[in-house]
Amino acid sequence: MADSKPLLSLDGDPMAAEALLQDVFGIVVDEVVRKGTSASEKVCEWKEPEELKQLLDLELRGEGESQQQILERCRAVIHYSVKTCHPRFFNQLFSGLDPHALAGRIITESLNTSQYTYEIAPVFVLMEEEVLRKLRALVGWSSGDGVFCPGGSISNMYAVNLARYQRYPDCKQRGLRALPPLALFTSKECHYSIKKGAAFLGLGTDSVRMVKADERGKMIPEDLERQISLAEAEGAVPFLVSATSGTTVLGAFDPLEAIADVCQRHGLWLHVDAAWGGSVLLSQTHRHLLNGIQRADSVAWNPHKLLSAGLQCSALLLRDTSNLLKRCHGSQASYLFQQDKFYDVALDTGDKVVQCGRRVDCLKLWLMWKAQGGQGLERRVDQAFALARYLVEELKKREGFELVMEPEFVNVCFWFVPPSLRGKKGSPDYSERLAKVGFLLPALLQREARLPQVAPVLKERMVRKGSMMIGYQPHGSCGNFFRMVVANPALTRADMDFLLNELERLGQDL
Amino acid sequence: MADSKPLLSLDGDPMAAEALLQDVFGIVVDEVVRKGTSASEKVCEWKEPEELKQLLDLELRGEGESQQQILERCRAVIHYSVKTCHPRFFNQLFSGLDPHALAGRIITESLNTSQYTYEIAPVFVLMEEEVLRKLRALVGWSSGDGVFCPGGSISNMYAVNLARYQRYPDCKQRGLRALPPLALFTSKECHYSIKKGAAFLGLGTDSVRMVKADERGKMIPEDLERQISLAEAEGAVPFLVSATSGTTVLGAFDPLEAIADVCQRHGLWLHVDAAWGGSVLLSQTHRHLLNGIQRADSVAWNPHKLLSAGLQCSALLLRDTSNLLKRCHGSQASYLFQQDKFYDVALDTGDKVVQCGRRVDCLKLWLMWKAQGGQGLERRVDQAFALARYLVEELKKREGFELVMEPEFVNVCFWFVPPSLRGKKGSPDYSERLAKVGFLLPALLQREARLPQVAPVLKERMVRKGSMMIGYQPHGSCGNFFRMVVANPALTRADMDFLLNELERLGQDL
Repeated sequence: MADSKPLLSLDGDPMAAEALLQDVFGIVVDEVVRKGTSASEKVCEWKEPEELKQLLDLELRGEGESQQQILERCRAVIHYSVKTCHPRFFNQLFSGLDPHALAGRIITESLNTSQYTYEIAPVFVLMEEEVLRKLRALVGWSSGDGVFCPGGSISNMYAVNLARYQRYPDCKQRGLRALPPLALFTSKECHYSIKKGAAFLGLGTDSVRMVKADERGKMIPEDLERQISLAEAEGAVPFLVSATSGTTVLGAFDPLEAIADVCQRHGLWLHVDAAWGGSVLLSQTHRHLLNGIQRADSVAWNPHKLLSAGLQCSALLLRDTSNLLKRCHGSQASYLFQQDKFYDVALDTGDKVVQCGRRVDCLKLWLMWKAQGGQGLERRVDQAFALARYLVEELKKREGFELVMEPEFVNVCFWFVPPSLRGKKGSPDYSERLAKVGFLLPALLQREARLPQVAPVLKERMVRKGSMMIGYQPHGSCGNFFRMVVANPALTRADMDFLLNELERLGQDL
Repeated sequence: MADSKPLLSLDGDPMAAEALLQDVFGIVVDEVVRKGTSASEKVCEWKEPEELKQLLDLELRGEGESQQQILERCRAVIHYSVKTCHPRFFNQLFSGLDPHALAGRIITESLNTSQYTYEIAPVFVLMEEEVLRKLRALVGWSSGDGVFCPGGSISNMYAVNLARYQRYPDCKQRGLRALPPLALFTSKECHYSIKKGAAFLGLGTDSVRMVKADERGKMIPEDLERQISLAEAEGAVPFLVSATSGTTVLGAFDPLEAIADVCQRHGLWLHVDAAWGGSVLLSQTHRHLLNGIQRADSVAWNPHKLLSAGLQCSALLLRDTSNLLKRCHGSQASYLFQQDKFYDVALDTGDKVVQCGRRVDCLKLWLMWKAQGGQGLERRVDQAFALARYLVEELKKREGFELVMEPEFVNVCFWFVPPSLRGKKGSPDYSERLAKVGFLLPALLQREARLPQVAPVLKERMVRKGSMMIGYQPHGSCGNFFRMVVANPALTRADMDFLLNELERLGQDL
């Protein structure tokens, strides 16, 4: 029965709640902020899944546990988790720990509100507006619209949905069957979310026409023209081009000016997927890589990547000033977006999105920006470029490394050539072992066949040792190569040297 | 230039990073955990948007700021934010602060990883699996699949996308134009995300057929039958019914057994949107409200609502064991889901979703569950029901309140009848002022016309005073009424009494 004693909050003892949180925060500071960012600690503590399940005792039971047990569980969760803040975590397009961003994220979690109305998120409605305004200004727009989305994939989907709605407003009500077959264009180097999005939005993956890229990974505008003609000849209606600023693997920047020219000629919506490369706009030195972005209709930009704002922080920016976002996605739910409120209901931005409840993603970026200033963030970007350049030069000095191509961004793609293969380029065994077999045979089979394939074996060794994490992949006609990502703002030249030395150590017997 | 000194982490001083975080955490504990949950503090600190902009100094500049300034900014952000953890925050379907869940959220933020691969999220891949297994068991399934989504709206969309893919696998590649016109069914009391989702997925809002609900807000199965026949007669292919367990405004539970019978007869996918009501499954006493849910094909359930797990925690649960989720959404990106990894790549669950990076949403729920036990969570649900019942009985004793209907859940919908209108039911002025005018006239016009409309005026007064927050809305033929939501686990009978007393205080001159 409900009586006057609070049922919970740790048996009605609010002091115990504070004590728990203080203890947990102490563990976080010790184990993540201090040890997790220390190069002398392991980046990961590998366990086989079955063993890890036992260690974590994941089962959820009827009985609750003691405070002491809960604290042990917090320690275990952190201990066996990968430290993405570690200076040797090179595995993804995000890495590192910005303390101001983390402070913003902790405040966000504690305030636990939803971004949909000014009524319950007054600070964050205004803050999101200001942050988006600033990001748009860096794109080159003095007006526009935008929203934070749960990740770049959904930002890209929004762009596609907005483009088709702008051209065919009917489709919101009547659906795609009322429309002619549509075609959108992107390069074969694009992120896989474009195809996923086309399927989800009901367009189908066939509606995505793949434009050729040059050897550097940049979309070829002439082939874009050709693909548009081809699509038209097949009876499809082109409506959108998605260019990429900073491709996932090679870090390539599509030639936006030339692509914008094509879009302009054909009246197509230009979306720029700058999820990865958008942060380069902060750098006076390097922002030329995105020249032409101001001609886009929409831009996706994830500050959780190169700026280390923390997952997730993904902005969709729009040049539109006609309230397209709200017209396209709005449904005027009367229980949430009452029109007789005592404040300006244009501040209730929740109807701009297809979500209902929406997390606050602006505070972490805002607080970090306030602390660093745009200049601090610019230095961070410039630093990443400089370190990537340093790595490339060092790599060239060593015989055990082969560059896939000269990088123009902070993705450094290379093969490690183990001692037994050095100087044997051209032999049939060379490319098989270096790169290709792993793509075709499962790792287990390779081991049984005593034909160790370099990248997967090195990856396994570094993970089991916990010394570093770096991704590898096949790509186009190239077999497995490593993709080094210089994203963690705490990186130094010493970490670059470590990367090369560690690969040599791990691969010395191959 | 990149030298051997880390550029950032607070000017290369890791101790300063720790100190900052300690200071911020101290502010969070004082201002949110302690004062934010105290009934003697204000639930919100209302400011007009223009004034708040000035107070917050939102502009992002080139120069960074000092530690002291940053701490002041953290204090201001919290001060002017609504305290959703406050015992008088009754405004949404979430409220309160569970310290274990918050501990899980802080750890999640500090570890900052993405849920896509076992490689970088070993703990959370296994944990998500276990949490989903537990939620499925409560639905009544001993096997199945599932995933955490960024909110219930997207969980609902997933269900619709999966249902159409299961029936027409071709549509992933060829799109909706290759399909006959589709029809899905839900009641007029459903959440607005069903229509938003239909538009986003390319089906169009016309594809959503609205089934009648009874006076209690429950879908009428006979009308569902009728709508299905009607759709078929119009040449559409019915493929999905979305039933609701716990509607947004009235808190109604659709009759799942009868709806499942209809679905079975017509071979339709049964989705249950239990975003709000799913947590009732934890209660042996009340779970009968969802009888039949085990016959669903998919269930959306948001533990961030009634269980206070924190935004966002939204599970999509599936009965499917054929890997439908991955077949429908997968795209096998070779840079992320390499097939030659040294562990079982079935653990890389990222290809089940349309996102790429995906936040970890399982830890907060898991840690809270470990601490409370299923029994503790069950008591929390039972307590909410008991308090809602208490409120209804108290409300009936007072002449200033009129119940919209007897609740079956923890949404208590009622009108406040101000002194000047008591005993005047039936007069033309009565319903206009009590309820209807506010729906038609903006608040400003009402004030000018000296015809104050009760609910919006009371809402404005409570927000300006900061004493409590409760939502109101028109609904169907009913004008503006308050929807009290008993969700905060710290609530007591005293808070229910406060709600009634405070409305009487605020409305005594109306």
